[in-house]
Amino acid sequence: MATTRKEFTDFFPQLLDDVLGDLASFGATPEMVARIKEMIEYNVVGGKMNRGLSVVDTVKIMRGEGELPAEVNTKAMVLGWCVEWLQAFFLVADDIMDESPTRRGQPAWYRRKDVGILAINDSFILESAIYRLLKKYFRRDAYYVDLLELFHETSYQTELGQMVDLLTAPENDINLDRFSIQKHAYIVQYKTAYYSFYLPVALALLMTGTPADAPVFQVAMDILIPLGVYFQVQDDYLDCYGDPEFIGKIGTDIEDNKCSWLVVQALDRVTPEQRQILNDNYGRKAPAEHAQRVKRLYADLDIEGVYRAYEDKAIAELEDKISKVDEAAIPRQVFTAFLSKVAKRTK
Amino acid sequence: MATTRKEFTDFFPQLLDDVLGDLASFGATPEMVARIKEMIEYNVVGGKMNRGLSVVDTVKIMRGEGELPAEVNTKAMVLGWCVEWLQAFFLVADDIMDESPTRRGQPAWYRRKDVGILAINDSFILESAIYRLLKKYFRRDAYYVDLLELFHETSYQTELGQMVDLLTAPENDINLDRFSIQKHAYIVQYKTAYYSFYLPVALALLMTGTPADAPVFQVAMDILIPLGVYFQVQDDYLDCYGDPEFIGKIGTDIEDNKCSWLVVQALDRVTPEQRQILNDNYGRKAPAEHAQRVKRLYADLDIEGVYRAYEDKAIAELEDKISKVDEAAIPRQVFTAFLSKVAKRTK
Repeated sequence: MATTRKEFTDFFPQLLDDVLGDLASFGATPEMVARIKEMIEYNVVGGKMNRGLSVVDTVKIMRGEGELPAEVNTKAMVLGWCVEWLQAFFLVADDIMDESPTRRGQPAWYRRKDVGILAINDSFILESAIYRLLKKYFRRDAYYVDLLELFHETSYQTELGQMVDLLTAPENDINLDRFSIQKHAYIVQYKTAYYSFYLPVALALLMTGTPADAPVFQVAMDILIPLGVYFQVQDDYLDCYGDPEFIGKIGTDIEDNKCSWLVVQALDRVTPEQRQILNDNYGRKAPAEHAQRVKRLYADLDIEGVYRAYEDKAIAELEDKISKVDEAAIPRQVFTAFLSKVAKRTK
Repeated sequence: MATTRKEFTDFFPQLLDDVLGDLASFGATPEMVARIKEMIEYNVVGGKMNRGLSVVDTVKIMRGEGELPAEVNTKAMVLGWCVEWLQAFFLVADDIMDESPTRRGQPAWYRRKDVGILAINDSFILESAIYRLLKKYFRRDAYYVDLLELFHETSYQTELGQMVDLLTAPENDINLDRFSIQKHAYIVQYKTAYYSFYLPVALALLMTGTPADAPVFQVAMDILIPLGVYFQVQDDYLDCYGDPEFIGKIGTDIEDNKCSWLVVQALDRVTPEQRQILNDNYGRKAPAEHAQRVKRLYADLDIEGVYRAYEDKAIAELEDKISKVDEAAIPRQVFTAFLSKVAKRTK
């Protein structure tokens, strides 16, 4: 039985109390505790929690039984929330770097009058809290050091992806020469796929007793990284072609000069004349004709058809890989659960 | 024999090569490697390196012999540089948050045209590199996990100190009601003393085989934290009363609305009329008369005399504590080496 969002959300206050209670050993005043409480609640809660939930669900599938024993359930919840906490650390900082006005339907944290650039230090505190939680719940487990290394490594991967993203597509310096299929692939793999898809399963593997050097980690990576890339390609596709009512926002990747899968595919197929159209129209906030011209070019190049071919191929390859997984090492259901949530999604 | 700056500096390229070579396993392109190289060199090198050197010197004193065996020397150098790397992580971010124009005589990293707000992500990468180095050099040591926890904990302490500093003394919102002796004490202890004074010795203790739960860590902390606080109080004093030729800069703590030791001591002693003078003149960039009026008030309150009394008492208490250290646990010289560098310094 998959963990419900409610069960997962209901567990959060315990972790918040852990982090806030622990602040006493750091000499924190009530004012400090109150501010950190507000900061954590504002930034860690409120997302879709797919990443965190997938840790718990993967542990359930790995163990192959019904309900988890209380201690196992607690630990899986903690690791799930640590993934959400890690994401909060990145998002608080990313929003500053991207100058995003909003996040999850409210002002981005750094945009609040009483926060501003202090948000940088708040993102550090969110990161540090992960290691306080890991210490509290896993200090005595043999795989504690593996958890620490996994969080370190995943953070580094995400930071490297973010670096390439920021260098490739600075909002105010449009230069499509920097865009390429390779750069796009690096960004989505490093900035998103590792922490969103590989990390939750790797954590579940460690928690269920898999030695850190077991080959199954590579098996999981070989499936989950392409799956995460596919997920992000979908995001890029839906930004342009999704139903705004379904996806809950109006896409602005073209206007925002994003190194989207669509534009790197277009760049790979343009004539010199079409390339000039992209140069003249991509990344312009206004007037709306610029974005419309880009979309017309995408239509001329049948980028939607390119996408559908990519999607069919990606799904077929993933299904093939999953079918070859040795179930003695890991149940295929771990991967089919992810794939069924991602494949052909419309939001 | 104390390690020279030259020996320590000469070791740096090896660590830089380690971090850059390791990037291959993260799929980094030559462009990425070149940028990270420049970023690390710009920010990690160029300081006084007192913190890093003190790790190596403490290891030497702990072992009580002449030269260190090659492997021990290497490890001590690595840990020393990790402290410098940790400082670089903080300084890159602090300079953004403080809007500092310069650092170590060159433009602050974020002020470079090709960097800007990307510096936030660069600071994360500096932090991540520490854990790559620790993994490479200490993965097989029994105290590896203790090193990781020590870096985590020290980072958290520093971040909490930075948070209180930023909330207490925002540059553009002057309100002396937020200043107090207690706040100042928290900021200097957490933002500076832990990572600058306790961390190097704690690392040396772990490296020389001290179990992480040995009482000597508390002994070291009870001396090194007050020593670090004294060091920072000196900094505050020298900013106002030091010889600019000696300290290499003209102090601007008063103009910058800093929660300095001097102003919290003054606030503790003012009459209501004198308090009004502080309210009207502290934290004003111009004209210069404002700062001069604050300095006149400090003179009226004999803050210099208050400082000298504090300094004499701090030194006497530290000497007394050091004299009571059980040399079977740790040589007193570890602490006298620190104290002799700090006591009565004029720059």
